[in-house]
Amino acid sequence: MQRLSRIKQLGLTYLVYPGAQHSRLQHALGSMHLMNQTLEILRYKGVVVSAEEAEAVTVAILLHDAGHGPFSHTLERILVEGISHEILTVEIMQLLNREFDQQLSLAIEIFKGNYKKKYLHQLVSSQLDMDRLDYLNRDSFFSGVAEGIIGYDRIIKMLTVRDNELLVESKGIYSIEKFLISRRLMYWQVYLHKTVLAAEQMLIKVIQRAKEISAIRKLSATGTLNYFLEKRFKSETPEQILLPFGDLDDSDIISSMKMWRYDDDKILSWLSGNLLSRKLFRVELRDKSINEEEILILKKQLKHVSNLKEDELDYLVFSESTSNHAYSPDSGAINILYNDGSIKDITTASDLPNILALEQPVIKYFLCYPKELKNNPDIAIAL
Amino acid sequence: MQRLSRIKQLGLTYLVYPGAQHSRLQHALGSMHLMNQTLEILRYKGVVVSAEEAEAVTVAILLHDAGHGPFSHTLERILVEGISHEILTVEIMQLLNREFDQQLSLAIEIFKGNYKKKYLHQLVSSQLDMDRLDYLNRDSFFSGVAEGIIGYDRIIKMLTVRDNELLVESKGIYSIEKFLISRRLMYWQVYLHKTVLAAEQMLIKVIQRAKEISAIRKLSATGTLNYFLEKRFKSETPEQILLPFGDLDDSDIISSMKMWRYDDDKILSWLSGNLLSRKLFRVELRDKSINEEEILILKKQLKHVSNLKEDELDYLVFSESTSNHAYSPDSGAINILYNDGSIKDITTASDLPNILALEQPVIKYFLCYPKELKNNPDIAIAL
Amino acid sequence: MQRLSRIKQLGLTYLVYPGAQHSRLQHALGSMHLMNQTLEILRYKGVVVSAEEAEAVTVAILLHDAGHGPFSHTLERILVEGISHEILTVEIMQLLNREFDQQLSLAIEIFKGNYKKKYLHQLVSSQLDMDRLDYLNRDSFFSGVAEGIIGYDRIIKMLTVRDNELLVESKGIYSIEKFLISRRLMYWQVYLHKTVLAAEQMLIKVIQRAKEISAIRKLSATGTLNYFLEKRFKSETPEQILLPFGDLDDSDIISSMKMWRYDDDKILSWLSGNLLSRKLFRVELRDKSINEEEILILKKQLKHVSNLKEDELDYLVFSESTSNHAYSPDSGAINILYNDGSIKDITTASDLPNILALEQPVIKYFLCYPKELKNNPDIAIAL
Amino acid sequence: MQRLSRIKQLGLTYLVYPGAQHSRLQHALGSMHLMNQTLEILRYKGVVVSAEEAEAVTVAILLHDAGHGPFSHTLERILVEGISHEILTVEIMQLLNREFDQQLSLAIEIFKGNYKKKYLHQLVSSQLDMDRLDYLNRDSFFSGVAEGIIGYDRIIKMLTVRDNELLVESKGIYSIEKFLISRRLMYWQVYLHKTVLAAEQMLIKVIQRAKEISAIRKLSATGTLNYFLEKRFKSETPEQILLPFGDLDDSDIISSMKMWRYDDDKILSWLSGNLLSRKLFRVELRDKSINEEEILILKKQLKHVSNLKEDELDYLVFSESTSNHAYSPDSGAINILYNDGSIKDITTASDLPNILALEQPVIKYFLCYPKELKNNPDIAIAL
Repeated sequence: MQRLSRIKQLGLTYLVYPGAQHSRLQHALGSMHLMNQTLEILRYKGVVVSAEEAEAVTVAILLHDAGHGPFSHTLERILVEGISHEILTVEIMQLLNREFDQQLSLAIEIFKGNYKKKYLHQLVSSQLDMDRLDYLNRDSFFSGVAEGIIGYDRIIKMLTVRDNELLVESKGIYSIEKFLISRRLMYWQVYLHKTVLAAEQMLIKVIQRAKEISAIRKLSATGTLNYFLEKRFKSETPEQILLPFGDLDDSDIISSMKMWRYDDDKILSWLSGNLLSRKLFRVELRDKSINEEEILILKKQLKHVSNLKEDELDYLVFSESTSNHAYSPDSGAINILYNDGSIKDITTASDLPNILALEQPVIKYFLCYPKELKNNPDIAIAL
Repeated sequence: MQRLSRIKQLGLTYLVYPGAQHSRLQHALGSMHLMNQTLEILRYKGVVVSAEEAEAVTVAILLHDAGHGPFSHTLERILVEGISHEILTVEIMQLLNREFDQQLSLAIEIFKGNYKKKYLHQLVSSQLDMDRLDYLNRDSFFSGVAEGIIGYDRIIKMLTVRDNELLVESKGIYSIEKFLISRRLMYWQVYLHKTVLAAEQMLIKVIQRAKEISAIRKLSATGTLNYFLEKRFKSETPEQILLPFGDLDDSDIISSMKMWRYDDDKILSWLSGNLLSRKLFRVELRDKSINEEEILILKKQLKHVSNLKEDELDYLVFSESTSNHAYSPDSGAINILYNDGSIKDITTASDLPNILALEQPVIKYFLCYPKELKNNPDIAIAL
Repeated sequence: MQRLSRIKQLGLTYLVYPGAQHSRLQHALGSMHLMNQTLEILRYKGVVVSAEEAEAVTVAILLHDAGHGPFSHTLERILVEGISHEILTVEIMQLLNREFDQQLSLAIEIFKGNYKKKYLHQLVSSQLDMDRLDYLNRDSFFSGVAEGIIGYDRIIKMLTVRDNELLVESKGIYSIEKFLISRRLMYWQVYLHKTVLAAEQMLIKVIQRAKEISAIRKLSATGTLNYFLEKRFKSETPEQILLPFGDLDDSDIISSMKMWRYDDDKILSWLSGNLLSRKLFRVELRDKSINEEEILILKKQLKHVSNLKEDELDYLVFSESTSNHAYSPDSGAINILYNDGSIKDITTASDLPNILALEQPVIKYFLCYPKELKNNPDIAIAL
Repeated sequence: MQRLSRIKQLGLTYLVYPGAQHSRLQHALGSMHLMNQTLEILRYKGVVVSAEEAEAVTVAILLHDAGHGPFSHTLERILVEGISHEILTVEIMQLLNREFDQQLSLAIEIFKGNYKKKYLHQLVSSQLDMDRLDYLNRDSFFSGVAEGIIGYDRIIKMLTVRDNELLVESKGIYSIEKFLISRRLMYWQVYLHKTVLAAEQMLIKVIQRAKEISAIRKLSATGTLNYFLEKRFKSETPEQILLPFGDLDDSDIISSMKMWRYDDDKILSWLSGNLLSRKLFRVELRDKSINEEEILILKKQLKHVSNLKEDELDYLVFSESTSNHAYSPDSGAINILYNDGSIKDITTASDLPNILALEQPVIKYFLCYPKELKNNPDIAIAL
């Protein structure tokens, strides 16, 4: 858990919102706090939760992000190829389970969604789980985007359970609507902010380049990061990488990049140095996918002012897309309980004609390239 | 203006949310403060606002609610029959204009929407005026319904002007969406809260009964209130009632009701006494209009346990309706300015598929009657 | 209790801090809330509080201010001559006790300080009671004087009990120090603010004059207020006045003053009209008592520009004093419990050399007179 | 400046208050913001500040902490032996001055206190500078110790200037008192918190040990940190170390400690591993200096359960002291301006008898040792 205090919840977002320095540990503790409040409310409403179940679901939420690595979502599946943070979380839970004489067995069952009381899993992982309630509020607070703040206390008071399903009492529908809108606002204003995307793409390219080089020669990097750069995870089981993974945090990436600034590889040093000094890619957001032609022109231009090889141009000029669902019933609907006992998906609740529209995913496409290419197209880039 | 410090912004809402004791003066000062911030932003963006215009629009917003009487919206057009608070506001402005040597002429023109720079009027009165920005935030804050809080500072930063029209920069669309959703939430959770409706309906009935009695005999009431109870406003011009109106505030209603508790008229004393002790009507909210049959049954029952005459039953058993529009482009659309210079109504803005749905008004019907009728149907009511 | 929602906690303070509109009901509910938190903490620390005791001490704090009349401290002992609000509170409790079959007996014992568990009384009334913890925070919040805000939650967490005495754990001493300093700041910046004093002195003079006139002729006033203006409370027991007292709230004073603006008595109408329009006395604060000579000069001047009689001048020109004790151990010391089990008065606690100094009362003297006397000394005052 | 976003304002404090993750960059930007507010107030009061002076004092406050290294105060003079952060700040300013064509000359003069308008220096560095106003508030906010929050906006409104001296208007004395008390509270509750001291002492010992080893053999460490561990700063001028210093941030210390966990030196690995896992020294706070005898007993015990040499014991068992001055007039008094034009040091201001007491420094002594020594005195420590 102490490792999580050295991993920022929002990765490089602090380059745009300087206050966003909060750690994954804060988020884990906050989610646990909300879980305790929720259990108290549910019990007050007559839902029977045993002491053992309460402890298990609390442990499950406390550990729900334990499998996150440095710069979480940005580097997920890149640093540790093809292994999601959820799989690593389960591995860590199982490791702890062995250490603590099987005391985490129920927590693991709940986390995986195998326990009969489905609502306990929903409190840990669903459209309205403690994870989301905490992170939306916390990320709003620390980024200073106060508009994202949600009425988590009221939402929690509206939660209830029928037939082991987590439900929201009907008088809470306006709070849920506001929660979904806040979530969307946070996506476009913080999580997918243009400049944050630029920084994250640079970091991805840095690690991809470092891996490519590490296949050939040893890079100056912290010991643990070197392990992950050199390793190919084809044959390893997640279990085998747990120990080195437990050593990894944001500082490995930062201090290795600081050394890479002086590396002989021009691409690695250019990307690392510029990211550290906050000289980021220019990002152009579009509603439609980026024209191949446009990319080619930029690449040609880059080739003209640098001496990069064809396949190296991809590190500096490329397009990507990102999308956001304010509400995706596929990953578990939000169900409303009416006074007459009927239950409806929130999208079909009367008075909320606009929720249905939130089901549509919004996709944005973006183009990344060094700012110099358009600002000073003829001047050579030190590459 | 000091009179406004004796008129609560939210009337009887404090019976549900005890913190909602804030005054119309606070709201007037707050709106003026937001106006100053907005003018600073607009000027920073190059919109030319002369010192004279700035003063005028500031005076206009400061005085925009000066024509409100006690328990504002609840008693509007009831206490002063058929004269809206806007008309009275203009009268007060004109009175001040005479007193201050025509210095308010421009403020009045702006307030009435006659001035060429349309955006100045829009800052005072539109879907996105300083009035709404202040009251939504203030009412949320003092009622404690924190979910209604809006990002007014960010909205203000996004305001701009083209061709004398108030516009919102496109990167502010998510803030506007959140503002509209907050507004809807405040309507259903505060302004049209069931118990608030119950109290307001009781107050309306109190004043209607008092007027009816005042046509026959003199009631114990404060001097100013007596004037308004006895007066029939058929022939008077608004100007003629300005002086007594300027004396009227919440305390006239409250202290008169306290005396009416001991009045011989059973209906007046029952309504006044129960409202003061917070023993309110039961209110049943419905999605469809209330069946006449249902009302008749309740009236019959009331007649059975009291000795009221047929036409007196209407004071205690009746139905009403209330409606809310989260966004009504008829009263001035919210227009978005895109980077390419195009302007769109917010409902047609891309990425906001759900706003269109907010145009639909939501209507709720409700039935009011004394709680005893259902709780203890056979026991006589002391009427 | 509903009556308390019509009595402002801070009386006329809203004339200086427009937000200070909060009611005594809000304070009563807030104090009760803090009491619940405190009981939970104390029980968690092993202090045995029975269900009956918990209910009694909660009732005691809920009702602790029930005996307050309109404009509380300002008019205390003036409106109801010689009877303090504490005596009236006990009367109200006893009335309720009779109504509720002696269920409030223990609450009354605790309130009066007669119950064996002394700390229960201390939670209701002492230097560190729930009353003060609530009002300091609430008054800071609503007046907007944010500096007065105290760490009430931390103070509550530091409370403990030994030998039935309320104590503070030693690691809480800095929070207590801050609480005492905040309290002092609130006194000088809000409760005893110059302009608030001016308004309060005008209100006192209004009521004194109204009483003087009522001895001779009937004044236009609300029914209940008339009762208190005419009554001489020499022979009455507090019990006899309970019923009319229960009808009295801020609105009686406000609406009566509005009628008195038009009274024939020049002093009454001048004071009432000016107070309602916020044209207040000038107040000069001094460290030493006001020279009689200075008052005489002002009176002579007032006589010159008005046609007041000698004894009427006292209503408009006079001096008063006010004092404040940040910490007065006489009314119950704040005792600190050290880890080694020893108990010390906070003034002798190590590391807090400055608390001792707070025991000294600070006295301020002030002079009141109509502003016109100095601004336009030669122009006749419409008296 | 981007480097400062990688240095935490409060170093290891997050081990006690998980929210205290804020960076020195946030503090620098915040101080600059307060400076702008202050300049606006002062100009409004008629103090003439030229555009050039305003820019210079703003630059001075923005850069005032640029010379801080990783874990700021904790490692000051240890990592870079004998060179204070103020000296490095001046060096960085001079470097920038050369880069920006002498545009920072006035900023440097102000920072050093050589400019004729003394109050400009006082705004950057004095008992009441923008630095303190920002950090007290910011550290309270992020640590969650809400009691430390100060009324910085009111203090700023009370600032004024006479004869080039920064003064506080007399009506601001209660705000200043509260500021001093808050500062003291923050010292004992956050900055000098027992567990924070424990973590900081461990970090100091880690670096001391690493330096000792580096004199003999090369340690695994990030490149930049290695430079500082191996270097002896006897002969270097501050200028010579600027370049490597500009590379150094918290991540160097963290990622080097992570490698040192596996170092052969038992002391270095024990200290690093335990600090990273938050297994900290036990700290005993005392009012008197620690008895040598007590330390000897603990050392003897440690020797018994480990195989450390005599001189190595000092790394794990030792005593230290820390002190705090709430108000130290030596480093620039806080002067109050009275309405009659007189100026007094705040300690002699009437009504504040307790400030004088704050001049006394409070010294605390503490003893550090591994927890195991007392918890399980006979079990061998893996050293």
